[in-house]
Amino acid sequence: MTARAMAQHPRLLLTPETVTEIRQELGSVPVFDAQMAEAVSMVNAAIDQGIDVPIPVDMAGGYTHERHKRNWLLMQQAGVLYQFTEDKKYAEYVREMLLAYAEMYPTLGLHPAKRSYSPGKLFWQCLNDANWLVSVSQAYDCIYEFLSEEERELLERDLFRPYADFLSVENPQFFNRIHNHSTWACAAVGMIGLVLEDEEIVSRALYGLRDSSIQAGMLDNDGGMIRKAGEYQAGFLAQMEGSFSPDGYFTEGPYYLRYAIFPFLLFSASLDQSMPELDILGYHDSILRKAVYALLNQTDANGLVFPINDAQKGMSWKSRDIVTAVDLAYHLYDQDPELLSIAQLQGWVTLDPAGFRVSKDLQQGLAKPLHRNSVMYRDGAQGTQGGIGILRAEGSAGHELCLVMKYSAQGGGHGHFDKLSYSLYGPMGEIVQDYGSVRWVNIDQKGGGTYLPENNSWAKQSIAHNTVTVDQTTQYQGKIQLADANQPYLFAADILHPEVQYISARDSNAYPGVMLHRSMVLIADSGLAEPIVVDLFRVESDSAHTYDLPLWYTGHLLTTNMEFEQLAALTPMGKNHGYQHMWLEGQGVAGEAPITMTWFANGTFYSMISVATPGDLLISTFLGADDPNHNLRRDPALLIRKKDQADALFVNVVEPHGSYSPVLEIPKTPYGVIKGVEVILNNREYSIVSIHTEDGTQRNIMIANRDNDPAATHEVTAKDQSWTWTGPFHYMTNNK
Amino acid sequence: MTARAMAQHPRLLLTPETVTEIRQELGSVPVFDAQMAEAVSMVNAAIDQGIDVPIPVDMAGGYTHERHKRNWLLMQQAGVLYQFTEDKKYAEYVREMLLAYAEMYPTLGLHPAKRSYSPGKLFWQCLNDANWLVSVSQAYDCIYEFLSEEERELLERDLFRPYADFLSVENPQFFNRIHNHSTWACAAVGMIGLVLEDEEIVSRALYGLRDSSIQAGMLDNDGGMIRKAGEYQAGFLAQMEGSFSPDGYFTEGPYYLRYAIFPFLLFSASLDQSMPELDILGYHDSILRKAVYALLNQTDANGLVFPINDAQKGMSWKSRDIVTAVDLAYHLYDQDPELLSIAQLQGWVTLDPAGFRVSKDLQQGLAKPLHRNSVMYRDGAQGTQGGIGILRAEGSAGHELCLVMKYSAQGGGHGHFDKLSYSLYGPMGEIVQDYGSVRWVNIDQKGGGTYLPENNSWAKQSIAHNTVTVDQTTQYQGKIQLADANQPYLFAADILHPEVQYISARDSNAYPGVMLHRSMVLIADSGLAEPIVVDLFRVESDSAHTYDLPLWYTGHLLTTNMEFEQLAALTPMGKNHGYQHMWLEGQGVAGEAPITMTWFANGTFYSMISVATPGDLLISTFLGADDPNHNLRRDPALLIRKKDQADALFVNVVEPHGSYSPVLEIPKTPYGVIKGVEVILNNREYSIVSIHTEDGTQRNIMIANRDNDPAATHEVTAKDQSWTWTGPFHYMTNNK
Repeated sequence: MTARAMAQHPRLLLTPETVTEIRQELGSVPVFDAQMAEAVSMVNAAIDQGIDVPIPVDMAGGYTHERHKRNWLLMQQAGVLYQFTEDKKYAEYVREMLLAYAEMYPTLGLHPAKRSYSPGKLFWQCLNDANWLVSVSQAYDCIYEFLSEEERELLERDLFRPYADFLSVENPQFFNRIHNHSTWACAAVGMIGLVLEDEEIVSRALYGLRDSSIQAGMLDNDGGMIRKAGEYQAGFLAQMEGSFSPDGYFTEGPYYLRYAIFPFLLFSASLDQSMPELDILGYHDSILRKAVYALLNQTDANGLVFPINDAQKGMSWKSRDIVTAVDLAYHLYDQDPELLSIAQLQGWVTLDPAGFRVSKDLQQGLAKPLHRNSVMYRDGAQGTQGGIGILRAEGSAGHELCLVMKYSAQGGGHGHFDKLSYSLYGPMGEIVQDYGSVRWVNIDQKGGGTYLPENNSWAKQSIAHNTVTVDQTTQYQGKIQLADANQPYLFAADILHPEVQYISARDSNAYPGVMLHRSMVLIADSGLAEPIVVDLFRVESDSAHTYDLPLWYTGHLLTTNMEFEQLAALTPMGKNHGYQHMWLEGQGVAGEAPITMTWFANGTFYSMISVATPGDLLISTFLGADDPNHNLRRDPALLIRKKDQADALFVNVVEPHGSYSPVLEIPKTPYGVIKGVEVILNNREYSIVSIHTEDGTQRNIMIANRDNDPAATHEVTAKDQSWTWTGPFHYMTNNK
Repeated sequence: MTARAMAQHPRLLLTPETVTEIRQELGSVPVFDAQMAEAVSMVNAAIDQGIDVPIPVDMAGGYTHERHKRNWLLMQQAGVLYQFTEDKKYAEYVREMLLAYAEMYPTLGLHPAKRSYSPGKLFWQCLNDANWLVSVSQAYDCIYEFLSEEERELLERDLFRPYADFLSVENPQFFNRIHNHSTWACAAVGMIGLVLEDEEIVSRALYGLRDSSIQAGMLDNDGGMIRKAGEYQAGFLAQMEGSFSPDGYFTEGPYYLRYAIFPFLLFSASLDQSMPELDILGYHDSILRKAVYALLNQTDANGLVFPINDAQKGMSWKSRDIVTAVDLAYHLYDQDPELLSIAQLQGWVTLDPAGFRVSKDLQQGLAKPLHRNSVMYRDGAQGTQGGIGILRAEGSAGHELCLVMKYSAQGGGHGHFDKLSYSLYGPMGEIVQDYGSVRWVNIDQKGGGTYLPENNSWAKQSIAHNTVTVDQTTQYQGKIQLADANQPYLFAADILHPEVQYISARDSNAYPGVMLHRSMVLIADSGLAEPIVVDLFRVESDSAHTYDLPLWYTGHLLTTNMEFEQLAALTPMGKNHGYQHMWLEGQGVAGEAPITMTWFANGTFYSMISVATPGDLLISTFLGADDPNHNLRRDPALLIRKKDQADALFVNVVEPHGSYSPVLEIPKTPYGVIKGVEVILNNREYSIVSIHTEDGTQRNIMIANRDNDPAATHEVTAKDQSWTWTGPFHYMTNNK
């Protein structure tokens, strides 16, 4: 540790210098001032109510859980207020509460709930204990010099050192993983280590436990592996290398990235001050900067986080974690003015030098609108385990259509078995949805806020996603270990041309003997008022199977050209693999004509046109079967089922069109422009599909299914026409 | 007609004097100017595209229907723009379009759709033809003096006079009713009559057809009676007397009031200028003023119109009709500054002297916040046919809870069989919902935008509403004629004391031999953070019946203390009376303990606690059975069923509490404060119920079921205690 670091407190997010600067300018930085006022109001009210440090009893959502959560926030905020206002009542409040914790802590055994693979002491899981210490180490740092030496000794002896040991050496299965739990653990232990000026503790946080006795293959509560075979590194630096792909993608998905980025950035900001020689911000090619942008990119037009893998819907830019991420990234990296526009939307800033700078620069009008281009993120620490593509296009009215295609790795215990799935977002949110998780975070009435049984039985299953399920069986038999060992393969992609963007990926491991190959195309040319999505899902097998492709649309079905057989009673579609949760509502049999369907969601019409093989079943279904505690939403889907086929091709085109408001009651463009979809050719070598719009335009997509060499030329005759092109994918328009 | 009226054009909403005044101030009245700019942009674009007056073919939602609708708006706006800008291109545009209509009109027979009791010529129903003329008479008025005498003669001969005759003498079943259709008809005919300076036509509009051959009992498309027996008056003045109750309540409900108020006000504003001697604004005790306020009161905290009777959800203050109503009411009556605050929310004004004045007064900062007190509206032209109560109360955070209890008359063909039903609205909208209508207004894919079959089979049925259904049969056997002849009786009410407001009403006609008596209480005292609703629904009969009381909650069920028997297959709850649309999802049997249930809607928790008789069934159900075209929403309900009982009492208490956001993930107050509900006494004479909150307070409600004399004193002993009070209803708190 450097001399500078040893010299003074505070030293985590604040320093004596930055505090002095902020004190001088208080009252002239509106957003920061407003946040100060809110913190003052919250903490003053809490001081009036008095301190409560209850014996831990409850699960998430229960009183003691929520109280200890509130206490960590109150202490952290009070510590900051003490620094900025110099009002001793805030320091005294923190001191009293810390002393109460120090009195209770030595008396605590493990939390009584015993529902975690790593039970905590204050909370049912160590994870929350780590959350607590990340905040409380800041509070302690802020009042460090206010305390007497005796008080510090007592707190360190009875509270902080045993607390840090508990989270690390006493719980290696929690501390020594490559997982968001361990990121929190390392940050918590490291941050208190910095405050305690204890090099050994800091080193433990940075480099992990040297010797831990975790067996490879041991599982956590979510079914995730504690340590994968061959994985030996641990600690914060190893987390930075192992948690992200080289592009900053987080394998558990953006909901957990949002959660993990917070300790990553807080500990890094602290290290940047105390141990500048580490150059933690530049570490691993500035991976944290990439991660922040990856997080911001994985949100829809209104900043709602894509609910892929285990994720509670509704999480957004406005969360405390993302406010912190935006402020710290702005401050610690290159002051990107586009981040300021997000800070503006967020409406508040963190009470630290980062938030202070953001507030000042907002005041100076430096914000620039956020522009997000299409992007493809590689998954896996080496970037070799598939990825996700986020394709964005704008329609004539400036409305964004955003296609998210997932061909990533499994993502551990929070991953879903949804290889080659997609979801679609419009200007008002979800159009074709990913279910998200079955969980009501922190809602006591819903299983104490933990993952509900239907998260496994439904949300993780393949049929819960917009991808092909083979033989009504979840990919990889629903086994994480198998899924973790494989991932899809990116066959071809081009997202650089706004008129036609595509991603083509395949998977041969999810189902033995079955090759899934999906090509998704986002077309936004000047002949279309709104972008359209073309989805070619090809399946190859040498034996016959049943292939199910659902469309989990949001909103209300307006019309379809299929005649459904009316079912007088509803029964579940199956017994397992998620089908047990789906009511079979109606079914029809496809003839020669394409299947059409129009639905209405969030003020906009959407139409799908689908090429079916005569005999394909079209099934209308919705959720809610085998759901005794009403944990599921009653979301609807249309499912196309191809029975007894070896090779098969699903072709679906989705287009947004028009609008309707119940206030005006005037529909605009209630019918789409796509009048036909035609499979010109489909075999194991080539697929050619044409889309016909009402203005007579024919858009053709040609795919070389076997050969993704960009230089290879292809020539084939189909429907009395010769088709020639170069590369695995070609797009061509005939204006007729 | 007065000399003033005969002198000049324009003469409907504009006059040469008001036009001169507005012209001079254009550019200095921001809201009005913005609306002008929008109109200029819309009409200029239309002028560029050229005129299209297609031969009528389509139903609502189809091209010709929407085009003729658009034409009337374009002509009306262009006429106004000609007056304000003096730019002749606008007058020429209107002239050309009118001449095109005059060329086509004499060639038209009835519209080919033939689906209305009164087919129109331009549209499938006369109603839309009348809509057209209300707007187009204004357009003609605006360019009257621009036209040559020959052009006027041609237009009047080939278009306007035959048009007015078609809507009146040729369709008496449409023109001569007391119904919103006829209001439009009279306004259309009357407004063109004023422009034509034809006293006979105006008189026809004001006083109706002298001799019409409508048989009493003839029905319209909605099952409404064209003419009720004993009803002989017709015409606009009769409409003003017959359409509203003396309080301004419109018997079809606020959705239709919104629709009808538009022609009422436009024709009245025109008459006020042309025939001031009529004092139309003061007519029938200024009934139109009352109606405007009744409309504004029948909306929730965000201005969404209560969806009672046939009503499409989502209609709000922002609709063109209500903008017009607010502007005209402000201008024509007493410039109530509270109306300005609604105009502010609406964000735009009408392009006439009313909108101009509103815009000027907004600019001067005259707006005052709208305050809405609880109110009870009487129904029926004489105010003797029941009514509706709108009870509002505020919680500690200023959040409004609004209880709407309906004990009104049937409301004709658009009425629902929902005597003694209620709905509940929070700060974010519906909590306990009225289904509204099964209709997608103007959406071609949904039956051409008309009422769908499920409107009759579901939306109108009693079980679709939060009221008691007896023996699984709709009130009045679902027969409008029976229902129209009767209505509930207001037993007692007091809405003047914000701490405790109540309405108690009964009905003995909906089910022969069964008396329904519901008392609803809204309590908002200082001991409660949020208001609570207490619902005592008493049923008396001398024979045994099945009584069903559903709770059509919005949002997601979190938890209930009832154990539901899991049903492996879903079947409809019945064969008719709406039950055929409800899936039986699960059921449980009540024991001694009250039934509790908590749900989550729009960011807030709600809990219900219900006293059940052991053996009562609790049924979990949701909509969607027998719905081949997906016309219904999949809304859920909990239903309490009392089987084989003669007298019965349902006691339900509903309380809002706390909040939760998926961004913060921190639930506030996820449990309610009501810990018990106890029936102290219940017989045909008295009902006494106590509500216990967690702070130990006991709130007691005492009702004298037989005697609503406010001076009568009552004394009864129950649970070893003597209860004494005066009047039909008493409320008393024991702090224990």
